[in-house]
Amino acid sequence: MDFDVNLDLPDNQKNNKTIDLDTNTIYDVLILGGGPAGLTAAVYCMRKGVKTGMLIDIIGGQVIKTSSIENYMGYKYIEGNDLIKRFKEQVKQFEIGLRKEDPAVNIKPSNIIEIESKSGKIFKARSVIVATGKSPRWLDVPGEQELLGKGVAVCATCDAPFFQDKNVTVVGGGNSGVEAALDLVDIANHVTIIQDVDELTADQILIDKLNQYDNYDVIYGHTVTEVLGDDFIEGIKIKDYDTKEVERRKTEGLFVEIGWVPNSGFVEGTLDLNKWNEIKVDCACHTNQPGIFAAGDVTSVPYKQIIIAGGEGSKAALSACEYVMRN
Amino acid sequence: MDFDVNLDLPDNQKNNKTIDLDTNTIYDVLILGGGPAGLTAAVYCMRKGVKTGMLIDIIGGQVIKTSSIENYMGYKYIEGNDLIKRFKEQVKQFEIGLRKEDPAVNIKPSNIIEIESKSGKIFKARSVIVATGKSPRWLDVPGEQELLGKGVAVCATCDAPFFQDKNVTVVGGGNSGVEAALDLVDIANHVTIIQDVDELTADQILIDKLNQYDNYDVIYGHTVTEVLGDDFIEGIKIKDYDTKEVERRKTEGLFVEIGWVPNSGFVEGTLDLNKWNEIKVDCACHTNQPGIFAAGDVTSVPYKQIIIAGGEGSKAALSACEYVMRN
Repeated sequence: MDFDVNLDLPDNQKNNKTIDLDTNTIYDVLILGGGPAGLTAAVYCMRKGVKTGMLIDIIGGQVIKTSSIENYMGYKYIEGNDLIKRFKEQVKQFEIGLRKEDPAVNIKPSNIIEIESKSGKIFKARSVIVATGKSPRWLDVPGEQELLGKGVAVCATCDAPFFQDKNVTVVGGGNSGVEAALDLVDIANHVTIIQDVDELTADQILIDKLNQYDNYDVIYGHTVTEVLGDDFIEGIKIKDYDTKEVERRKTEGLFVEIGWVPNSGFVEGTLDLNKWNEIKVDCACHTNQPGIFAAGDVTSVPYKQIIIAGGEGSKAALSACEYVMRN
Repeated sequence: MDFDVNLDLPDNQKNNKTIDLDTNTIYDVLILGGGPAGLTAAVYCMRKGVKTGMLIDIIGGQVIKTSSIENYMGYKYIEGNDLIKRFKEQVKQFEIGLRKEDPAVNIKPSNIIEIESKSGKIFKARSVIVATGKSPRWLDVPGEQELLGKGVAVCATCDAPFFQDKNVTVVGGGNSGVEAALDLVDIANHVTIIQDVDELTADQILIDKLNQYDNYDVIYGHTVTEVLGDDFIEGIKIKDYDTKEVERRKTEGLFVEIGWVPNSGFVEGTLDLNKWNEIKVDCACHTNQPGIFAAGDVTSVPYKQIIIAGGEGSKAALSACEYVMRN
């Protein structure tokens, strides 16, 4: 079986009402994605009493890669995994069709919308909520993919502990980069941040936190052009944006923290996207296709935050339910 | 003193960093309102490191009148007061200027925006977030205000316990009305819902819950035209929308649950409102005035939910901080 209808929870045997997503059922609402937007949409749809299904790659989305969350309202501090566990507990109260590790790869708009999953199954729904989130952006330079997992990482939260007492590099000085540096300064020997512009662009509170450490430095106005090493990373080449000079530097680890790309490839040509390939939505999560709604990090709504994704998921669900009732 | 800078918390002496809002300070962001949108905006502004103030009527907004919350993500079940206590704890980690029981009554757009409070003080800010929420809608019929608190109520959560074993009436069959009926069926002897249209318009899950009880009935196509009684409610007059016939009915309690009006009166003429008097905003919480943002139930964003207000508060804060940085 390539899915786990038990939502991975150890304590779920008595309450779990999830069942496998069924190709013969016409769902009222089919939710694509299982991050904060998708899980919130699920709770709202189920509370409205409509037949709901979920087609998911990874439950929890980017949140499970986040260690410390201090800006989700209701929790002064919570780990990403803990928060998602709580979201999942809310979903599994209801009888919901759910299939994971089998994301949507195609969507055909119509009165009854057809959604094809990666495994080739076709699911049917009266309305769809696209909440497929975003994925890390890559540097796209030689050596990066070859040395991924061999010193190159994209999740400081997950991988920082492997770099104890090492000298490591973080590419990116926005929130992702500075958060990664903060994950690393306590563990690594030294952290160098490579930032393309002339200042860190992270929240001031994060920069202030980082300033409490003296085992880090920042190289401004540079970018990484190559990752060096055979079986494991040995160094990087960095380029000065002004002088175009390229310099070799030793490093024992590289964290790529330069942002995200929306997971919207499978709706290209079907839904209107903006110049960043985000799905264009209005304030009620409508896309340009009737019956297809979108929510969370994959959309044109600015600022990617858990509480924003939650709010958008709720709106998309209520818009979808309204659409189903009327049609 | 007509404000409490201690945010009402019993355990806040050691952490509380709130101070009185100062008329001599120019705040970067001044937040009007202390419901979920306002409190979320405060946390996001403070984390950005900008000088933040709050001008508030009631901390917690409508949430403190809600007993059981089952659709705020992160909590399968939480009482309204508990959730707001947690929101407040997040705010009081930061040094924030706060003034309550003194809501804004006027706002003058400019480079430095001037905000007048009910007590006549003038506060100054580079940007403002209007998050003043909504208030219960009244029937506006004879006897209603005269008998308020004497059998007429607007908050079933707060007042249901006073109507033990009584025969009570709820006006309104939407979510507010059916939720009120659910608060009452376990406590009162009998509940009659008066609904203007031909069906209950609440969420199916709420209607299903109500159907598990047999001590309630619904009168469709009627409205309440008068509340009867001298020192305490004795009955009501209801009118049939079709036949125009008016009928007297005995009742021992009346819960007015017909919706809400946005608290936008003080920005009329300054900000663009829609036909429901909600402040018009785009997906990033911009109003028609530069530097003035709006979030939560007072805005044109559809569906009034705690998690939506939270998401909008976060967006408004990030938009306001961006505006302040740029200007």
